[in-house]
Amino acid sequence: MKPGYKAIYEQYRQSILRGILKPGDKLPSVRLLASELGVARKTVESAWAILVGEGYLVSQGARGTRVNPDLLNLAKKYPVIGEKPTPTTAGFGKSLRDRPGFLRLGIPSLDAFPYKKWLLLSGKAVRAMRPEEMTQPPLMGYAPLREALAHYLNISRGLSCSPAQIFITSGYQNNLRLILNTLANQRDKVLFEEPGYFLGQQLLKRAVQRLHRVPVDNQGLQTEYLQQHHADARLVFVTPSHHSPLAVTLSLPRKHQLLEWARQNESWIVEDDYDGEFHYTRQVLPALKSLDTHDRVIYMGTFSKTIMPALRISYLVLPHKLVDSFRAQAEHSEGGQPVLTQKIVASFLREGHFFRHLKKMRALYSRRRKNMLAALAEVYPEIFTVEVTDGGMHIIAYLRSGTQDEEMAALWQTHQLQVSPLSIWYQNTPKRYGLIIGYTNVATFAEAVALLQRPAQMTRALAGK
Amino acid sequence: MKPGYKAIYEQYRQSILRGILKPGDKLPSVRLLASELGVARKTVESAWAILVGEGYLVSQGARGTRVNPDLLNLAKKYPVIGEKPTPTTAGFGKSLRDRPGFLRLGIPSLDAFPYKKWLLLSGKAVRAMRPEEMTQPPLMGYAPLREALAHYLNISRGLSCSPAQIFITSGYQNNLRLILNTLANQRDKVLFEEPGYFLGQQLLKRAVQRLHRVPVDNQGLQTEYLQQHHADARLVFVTPSHHSPLAVTLSLPRKHQLLEWARQNESWIVEDDYDGEFHYTRQVLPALKSLDTHDRVIYMGTFSKTIMPALRISYLVLPHKLVDSFRAQAEHSEGGQPVLTQKIVASFLREGHFFRHLKKMRALYSRRRKNMLAALAEVYPEIFTVEVTDGGMHIIAYLRSGTQDEEMAALWQTHQLQVSPLSIWYQNTPKRYGLIIGYTNVATFAEAVALLQRPAQMTRALAGK
Repeated sequence: MKPGYKAIYEQYRQSILRGILKPGDKLPSVRLLASELGVARKTVESAWAILVGEGYLVSQGARGTRVNPDLLNLAKKYPVIGEKPTPTTAGFGKSLRDRPGFLRLGIPSLDAFPYKKWLLLSGKAVRAMRPEEMTQPPLMGYAPLREALAHYLNISRGLSCSPAQIFITSGYQNNLRLILNTLANQRDKVLFEEPGYFLGQQLLKRAVQRLHRVPVDNQGLQTEYLQQHHADARLVFVTPSHHSPLAVTLSLPRKHQLLEWARQNESWIVEDDYDGEFHYTRQVLPALKSLDTHDRVIYMGTFSKTIMPALRISYLVLPHKLVDSFRAQAEHSEGGQPVLTQKIVASFLREGHFFRHLKKMRALYSRRRKNMLAALAEVYPEIFTVEVTDGGMHIIAYLRSGTQDEEMAALWQTHQLQVSPLSIWYQNTPKRYGLIIGYTNVATFAEAVALLQRPAQMTRALAGK
Repeated sequence: MKPGYKAIYEQYRQSILRGILKPGDKLPSVRLLASELGVARKTVESAWAILVGEGYLVSQGARGTRVNPDLLNLAKKYPVIGEKPTPTTAGFGKSLRDRPGFLRLGIPSLDAFPYKKWLLLSGKAVRAMRPEEMTQPPLMGYAPLREALAHYLNISRGLSCSPAQIFITSGYQNNLRLILNTLANQRDKVLFEEPGYFLGQQLLKRAVQRLHRVPVDNQGLQTEYLQQHHADARLVFVTPSHHSPLAVTLSLPRKHQLLEWARQNESWIVEDDYDGEFHYTRQVLPALKSLDTHDRVIYMGTFSKTIMPALRISYLVLPHKLVDSFRAQAEHSEGGQPVLTQKIVASFLREGHFFRHLKKMRALYSRRRKNMLAALAEVYPEIFTVEVTDGGMHIIAYLRSGTQDEEMAALWQTHQLQVSPLSIWYQNTPKRYGLIIGYTNVATFAEAVALLQRPAQMTRALAGK
């Protein structure tokens, strides 16, 4: 099926018309393309002569052939018939979560990132690439990263784990999938916090038939519920350091109650320590996993909040007795994480930059949180109230009255303020109502006020004030 | 829960004893650690004074404190009581597929990779990191990579796709999960080749209740089977360019028969074009997807074979009418791929290096395949036979007689020859028997002979020759 000049002509013409080849793009050399397609050079030259003649291409002699730079926006002007219209480059395939905006939840401060250091380490990791690191990545993670992570978690989160217990993953979805596939079957009862992490409940609702919600109060998960109603549950997902989204901390007596429940019923606790590193009002609180003397806690952590979401690196710390079953499950379902990113993160940890960065972010977020709380009190004293908690990367602006947080969030989103309505994080009534506001990328009090004022008029109207 | 000096002492002592901190490792400064733990510097100093006194640490004045470099292999000598023994660093968490060795299937040639160019592009991608690229990666992939890929596939694989149809994924497991979750429910009939890709059938057996196998002959998948027995199937997985593992090519009449079957029954074809780029005996053959006038083919490709497995970048080309449902499914189950690796690959494609690299590899693999075939004829003329096919990255050494390929593969593996027994790629009888041999990393005829001779004596004994 050697293409003739007409086929090559048509292929390139379509590529240009549909915006796949762009004005000014350089084309492969005649020699290379002819060899790739297995045709004579003359065939390619004929095709290009027509395209030059029609004005699609311009020949620049020894400098090669390019798409005519004057062909601006051709894709828009000439939609190809018989197909869905091809969206423009900027807009295609946009997911809801890809929308730009401010006040988004869970994005670390991008202006305070140690770019220079990171680029230096990335460059080093790139140059140190060895052939054996080009093959399939190790299934449970790059060994130096697992070692550096074990060291960090033992020192900073109070764990007592070895690198062999650590499983490097790509994020929350990967963690949940591994845990459910390894530990639960479809008839197993699974518990989730009420309210609880929005993405988490969405995922679990799809994956689990017997999903039950356990209420949370200002001491965290109501663990007495577990003993009364859920002795038969296989798994409980919990955010003990800062509850998601209420940011309350699970009290020490309840922590022990939870661990004791798991021991008695041979259940598993999944500790989601998604932002436990960020605490402002007291000293560091060790993770629940640090109290796990009976080996029932699976610890989940992530670099999305502490380094950057674009990395796609998170991790599990497994109970000793589960390491083999997770590995066996992963042999079929996982392919490992890219080696380059794991190398960069490993050196960031090992050389102490991570430690220093967290310390700096803790101070910065503490200031930015104060700014946002003050701005909220300044702009909307009559509409919202807050309950100050220990930490995290967001605040909740509770509605003083009314239940219209979904409408309000939608309104704010039209002003590029990507806040989330609190009530959708609940499954059952009674719910609480408010807006979940990420403040980590708002640099000053003045900026916080300016952002909050954008939808002020409509917000007051909606709240009836 | 402020730790006292004893807790810090014990934590660090354990970290050293268990090999998490290694001889010579530098410790964080007293100031930094005290601040991290929220204790007085004096507390950290007290802990370290004891550890120095006991010989775990050495103080080097202004140059900081290190783990005593003379503490070699402490982890082995002093296993911590009450735990599973901690494996040594090199060995922990080894998956079967992490074993080192030769003749492994599907690994690109590591000695011929354009390292310099790759490092240059990686360095550029690192330096060009922008803050907005640090947030969550775009769900369906980094736009410039989707554009470069559409261009490549249209020119080189004969497709006619737009970037909007491309979904960047992390590998085969990710592809299968996305496809099954979007298109099939548990009662849907799914078809797979017999024999067929080993990992693929393992994954599908777990995920699908009604998995049926369709036999393959020297014209590829026997498509007349589909019309006779499987008008009700929802999905068929097929490797048309080079069947996995037999490397035969699906004939053109069967391609049309397959497409017609899908159109009539509104079924979906998944084209796994895992190594279609490597063909040696004839010109390039366009992908099945290039004939897909009724929009029923999901095309699966990967950079694991053409660049390197460590990348974890593969992709789907979706039918127009499925783009929205894949995106909707992914909103819940996917998190996007790391931006950095996508950027590097995008520039590798855009600047023409990928094209040139493939061309070079095609010539190299053609020579290496000849070498391996000649070496096999030289070392084992009485035991194996081959059937020469058009392309791919492996050959099959068929047993002339007998069925003992599993024992033979196990034997070869003890000589670090990671070959796969052909018969396990079959589900039903009749099976064929042989060894699947990857040749891409064997540089010369002499090296091929030397490797094949390693298990020669035992192989002849096993074959009864």
